[in-house]
Amino acid sequence: MRYVVIMAGGSGTRLWPLSRQGRPKQLLEMLDGKSLLRLAYERLIGLVDEDRILVCTGRAHADDVRAQLPELAEGNILGEPEGRDSLNAVAWSAAVVADRDPEGVVAMVTADHIIEPVDEFQRSLATAFEVAEARPNSLVTLGVVPTSPHTGYGYLHRADELDGFPGVHRISEFKEKPALDVAQAYLDSGEYWWNAGMFVWRATTLLGQLDQLLPETARTVREIVADPQRLDELFLTLQKISVDYAVMEPASVGRTDAEVVSVGLHIDWQDVGGFLSLAEMLTHDEHGNAIDGRTVTLDTSGSVLVNAAGPDHVVAAMGLEGCLVVATGSATLVTRLGDTERIRELVDLVRTQAGARYA
Amino acid sequence: MRYVVIMAGGSGTRLWPLSRQGRPKQLLEMLDGKSLLRLAYERLIGLVDEDRILVCTGRAHADDVRAQLPELAEGNILGEPEGRDSLNAVAWSAAVVADRDPEGVVAMVTADHIIEPVDEFQRSLATAFEVAEARPNSLVTLGVVPTSPHTGYGYLHRADELDGFPGVHRISEFKEKPALDVAQAYLDSGEYWWNAGMFVWRATTLLGQLDQLLPETARTVREIVADPQRLDELFLTLQKISVDYAVMEPASVGRTDAEVVSVGLHIDWQDVGGFLSLAEMLTHDEHGNAIDGRTVTLDTSGSVLVNAAGPDHVVAAMGLEGCLVVATGSATLVTRLGDTERIRELVDLVRTQAGARYA
Repeated sequence: MRYVVIMAGGSGTRLWPLSRQGRPKQLLEMLDGKSLLRLAYERLIGLVDEDRILVCTGRAHADDVRAQLPELAEGNILGEPEGRDSLNAVAWSAAVVADRDPEGVVAMVTADHIIEPVDEFQRSLATAFEVAEARPNSLVTLGVVPTSPHTGYGYLHRADELDGFPGVHRISEFKEKPALDVAQAYLDSGEYWWNAGMFVWRATTLLGQLDQLLPETARTVREIVADPQRLDELFLTLQKISVDYAVMEPASVGRTDAEVVSVGLHIDWQDVGGFLSLAEMLTHDEHGNAIDGRTVTLDTSGSVLVNAAGPDHVVAAMGLEGCLVVATGSATLVTRLGDTERIRELVDLVRTQAGARYA
Repeated sequence: MRYVVIMAGGSGTRLWPLSRQGRPKQLLEMLDGKSLLRLAYERLIGLVDEDRILVCTGRAHADDVRAQLPELAEGNILGEPEGRDSLNAVAWSAAVVADRDPEGVVAMVTADHIIEPVDEFQRSLATAFEVAEARPNSLVTLGVVPTSPHTGYGYLHRADELDGFPGVHRISEFKEKPALDVAQAYLDSGEYWWNAGMFVWRATTLLGQLDQLLPETARTVREIVADPQRLDELFLTLQKISVDYAVMEPASVGRTDAEVVSVGLHIDWQDVGGFLSLAEMLTHDEHGNAIDGRTVTLDTSGSVLVNAAGPDHVVAAMGLEGCLVVATGSATLVTRLGDTERIRELVDLVRTQAGARYA
């Protein structure tokens, strides 16, 4: 049977104070009141049975997830005691699915992006399921056809096409986030896809890879499934590591018995990792301001104004250019758009100077 | 007997959103938790009996006034149904005092400024009472000895000193807010005081002036006192006009039978009319930022950051210079310090675009 696990972890510091420790960006109700998590869930409807959709998130966010996805079946939230990088979300999910269904094939999907069109995404994911079902030894990744030399993504180097699966390629190498000139060369070559961070595999295949590469992790996630009471104790012993680094990279260069293949996603792939990308999705006024919520501007241009402090609050700006103003009930952020990459630094100061509950 | 009426009306747009229609600046608890109204009240203690201190304010603020001045005697709040400029606050107050005490002498004092030292203020006000008691036909104003060619105040042109009252002068002319060069000439001449907007007179003398100058107003305020039930109906018929324009200017040029005299106030007279003057009273950090409330700054200098949104809120600023950020529960203001004189314009936009309840 087919399963999907939506990964909704992370703290989303770059969107602070919209997102924060208490509410990662996937849970923000930002787009017509829908969160990225909700959009990720709706993208799966029709593709798999709803009772085989799971969400892996921080345990502290379980109630938020349940509120946003009331359809989610009981027991389908995997609440991590703490974030311990992507491998452990993936490994625990595989152990859970393998326990329910030893033949289970699981897709790990992200909730960090806006994806259009949805039916193209569904077609690619269906193809990825078919490959994983037909080729039990495969680790299938999704690769986004790049539209720019983006330096914020990893890249997949495509090799030959799989027999019988047009458009599905073996992957010869995983590349970390490149410098701009390298990214441009990748784009020009036409041989690379962006690493979408989404995967499809048989649950037992992934666990078998871990048996070869990180046997301690494989054993621990099986123990957690066998005795959920020990989740806290065991989860905190797991090695923090990314799935790319722990599994996909070694497997792609032949260090295991698996084959790494990729299905192309011909989609519009909009990162909402930071305010600049969030701004692209907002309404723009005639002065180039990106606006969200109740705001009033005078002599203000090229700025981003986000009022998420509720219907009884107004944000008023005068004489600003190139500024970012974000108001929530618990924090006000004012900075220049050129400084948005440093928000993490500011949030660290907020944590140390004002206190963790403000960060 | 001596009475004092503290005038605490006005909307304080220049300090929006700290002050707003629902809470004029005199009621803001800004200085060690004390409002300007509270400070104005405490300045009077020892000078007049507390049960003869009244407050004239907008009726909507009566509860706030009562909370800030629990000592205030029952019935000593004059709640205007709406602000109708200074003459009507003055005229109504005179009618109320004359009704309680036909011999009553009343001081009309403002609550817009920080005044130091308080004992010097008390001495001058006591002198003003003495003049008004000794010379029943006098309209006594208080004049601040100017320290700069301020263009935001009106000026009083002093004439000869009164016999028996050293330092008390007849006033030959009221001058409106002057241009800078005119203000400088006034300052250089040594013949001018700032018009403090505070007055002392017998209540019946002021009403007698109104009988001569604005008989309709005189009749209406007497009717309000005779039949308080008709306050709403009658108050709204009063002509909107300032006391300077309606009474002091004509009387100073001999158009009535009164004499206009002034007592000098040798005080430090700090306007808290706008954010620049408010900032002078706040804590400053080593980068020249004026800070109030819980804030965190990174690479920010020469800015004013006011967090009045409560203990659960943080204001975080990065990369700002010369900016003003004010956060309250109901509004966020971000502008440049050079634009603070235009806040009224922005608040007008807030009123029309967002709605009156946000302004």
